[in-house]
Amino acid sequence: MKKQLLIILLACFAFAAKSQAQEAIFRAQQIISPEIHDDSSVTFRLFAPNATSVQVTGDFLPTMKIDTPRGQMDGPGKADLNKDENGVWTYKSEVLKPELYNYSFIIDGFTTTDPSNPFLIRDVASSTNIFIVGGGHADLFKVNDIPHGTVARRWYDSPGLGMDRRITIYTPPGYENSQESYPVLYLLHGAGGDEEAWINLGRTSQILDNLIAQGKAKPMIVVMPNGNVIQDGAPGEGSMGFYKPQFMVAKTMDGTYESAFGDIIKFVESNYRVKAEKANRAIAGLSMGGFHTMHISRYYPNTFDYIGLYSAALMPREDATGKVYSNIDETLKTQMENGYKLYWIAIGKTDFLYQANQDFRTKLDSMGMPYEYVESEGGHIWRNWRVYLSQFVPLLFN
Amino acid sequence: MKKQLLIILLACFAFAAKSQAQEAIFRAQQIISPEIHDDSSVTFRLFAPNATSVQVTGDFLPTMKIDTPRGQMDGPGKADLNKDENGVWTYKSEVLKPELYNYSFIIDGFTTTDPSNPFLIRDVASSTNIFIVGGGHADLFKVNDIPHGTVARRWYDSPGLGMDRRITIYTPPGYENSQESYPVLYLLHGAGGDEEAWINLGRTSQILDNLIAQGKAKPMIVVMPNGNVIQDGAPGEGSMGFYKPQFMVAKTMDGTYESAFGDIIKFVESNYRVKAEKANRAIAGLSMGGFHTMHISRYYPNTFDYIGLYSAALMPREDATGKVYSNIDETLKTQMENGYKLYWIAIGKTDFLYQANQDFRTKLDSMGMPYEYVESEGGHIWRNWRVYLSQFVPLLFN
Repeated sequence: MKKQLLIILLACFAFAAKSQAQEAIFRAQQIISPEIHDDSSVTFRLFAPNATSVQVTGDFLPTMKIDTPRGQMDGPGKADLNKDENGVWTYKSEVLKPELYNYSFIIDGFTTTDPSNPFLIRDVASSTNIFIVGGGHADLFKVNDIPHGTVARRWYDSPGLGMDRRITIYTPPGYENSQESYPVLYLLHGAGGDEEAWINLGRTSQILDNLIAQGKAKPMIVVMPNGNVIQDGAPGEGSMGFYKPQFMVAKTMDGTYESAFGDIIKFVESNYRVKAEKANRAIAGLSMGGFHTMHISRYYPNTFDYIGLYSAALMPREDATGKVYSNIDETLKTQMENGYKLYWIAIGKTDFLYQANQDFRTKLDSMGMPYEYVESEGGHIWRNWRVYLSQFVPLLFN
Repeated sequence: MKKQLLIILLACFAFAAKSQAQEAIFRAQQIISPEIHDDSSVTFRLFAPNATSVQVTGDFLPTMKIDTPRGQMDGPGKADLNKDENGVWTYKSEVLKPELYNYSFIIDGFTTTDPSNPFLIRDVASSTNIFIVGGGHADLFKVNDIPHGTVARRWYDSPGLGMDRRITIYTPPGYENSQESYPVLYLLHGAGGDEEAWINLGRTSQILDNLIAQGKAKPMIVVMPNGNVIQDGAPGEGSMGFYKPQFMVAKTMDGTYESAFGDIIKFVESNYRVKAEKANRAIAGLSMGGFHTMHISRYYPNTFDYIGLYSAALMPREDATGKVYSNIDETLKTQMENGYKLYWIAIGKTDFLYQANQDFRTKLDSMGMPYEYVESEGGHIWRNWRVYLSQFVPLLFN
């Protein structure tokens, strides 16, 4: 058999024998990058014999101060790779803390992906490579040898938006082979995201699988809808086809999504075995999804017992005139009077929405509306949102 | 509201104001590439002011002859992009035929992805950009505004392999809201693939949705397992974590997968509403998956009424000694005597497995074992396998 396999391999790589470009591909295929060492340092490698400068940039490096119109801000650090006689560039990092990191290479000033690392995640229109340094909370982001839930991409009918829409749904391990009913967490993405954001960037299924296996979270269904009402599905996954995703598309924060959110609840509650009651419904979202969460949980005031605002885009809206955004104080008061078990607000100290969240807290304080508040390091980044999800989920449905 | 959105946008892009590298990112964000024109020509663009040479390579360009140890072979063509005064490189293609194409950029000799196109597919360890020129059969690869099936990533118990394993399952539109039972197609990937290959590279869910909507295929369940028995899931999706995928891993063609295939059938038939009978079971696979299909359909001789070999790796095996690969002629004869509705063999004229498939046909002819044979242009490529799937599926369960 090995002889035949060798023939297949030779046939597939036959191009490598003569052409310089194909030889480069062949050599590049031998490269391992990133290589995570036992001491949690990481070596990055790139085969680029013609390059005169190669850098790596990513959130595993110490941040650099960058001048911006808003003053000095932290930007991702950079480090130089060194070239050996075979055209292979190398950089070995310091010992890194447990985390899911992202990085890119900068080759002669051009920022691009690491061709040796097929693990990429898309954030809006950009794809960057990722790697995990295990240990601590980062083990929640890994696929471990434990029971796994199911992740389904389905389509639901939204009469409120007049279309079928794509949605990502996590059901916990054992869902299919039980008669039990489960609680539901509705988990909303930020501007530039879609129904792929939480499952990919957010590592939702890994976090849930791990927390459930550790007995730290109740088995639950997690519903990840698309908050961009002009899309039926994520870019490339809907009928708009392949196009360049934008940071913020039309009609994302105009009330349309919130007012049609009942379609999603109805779909979930008529298609899954769920405990269809307030005590078993949670809603949370990041950034724009935190804005949606605040409004949805208030607009449907007696629907959710658990509300999570992660780095929520809680800005005062001077031009809000629609039904969803009217009577905010009054409906918040109704929500408070109806009662809930948890109103959870988390924000990073350097988040550009930090002050907006403090203003919202002041408002809640003045109303006597109770909430829990978590302040983390860092800013408006996925690293925080994965951690917030890991912190929020164990508080649910107890 | 627009004012606040502007502030978010400014905050996010604030870095762009001062740093040259960030300005490059900002400028790159404005680029549209590829742009598919109404006449089906395509413009590729890249912002790379420091580059001295930029080429695009891909299967949309006329192939080039390349010298290999096996003689002259066709390789992907290349075309030069031209630079304008802003550092933007451009190439406009000829009018292209309807197809799903892939491409990469070559920047100063370095092959990489197009940073303006987030639509990438991984084949073994390499990610390349894709685009679709619509019309004709390529419309089957698009997400159209029609009813959509569900795609689930689930885990099943494989006692035969001693592990839980990840599997991709397509259920047709309406599955969840009916009481009907459905026929099942088991669809197997090639060497270097996994349970993500058919759904991503193969566009299985789009092809099925479209053929079903057009009335050209029966609603069916499509089961896409992982044929690499040392993996519990695809690279990055299983407990082996992130690592560089290989073209051919251990134990892929040693009989282990075939002999444990009953675990998959059992899982599907006890977890889905299926017509659990030979007349409603089909199995097909590409390359190594065609090899698996030939052996599984023979090893479980009265199980499948529809068998599809797409560019199957039907090579004689000198070292085959295990139970699965013994008595091949005898079990083929039993399979023939038990009867089946379709034994379908497809191969491209320039496929390196062309002769092996002709040898297999000679063997079947000599046994009087009936089959249908389709010979296409081209070689051992996904473009053919998507078409073979589109041709095979309408023949099933009639």
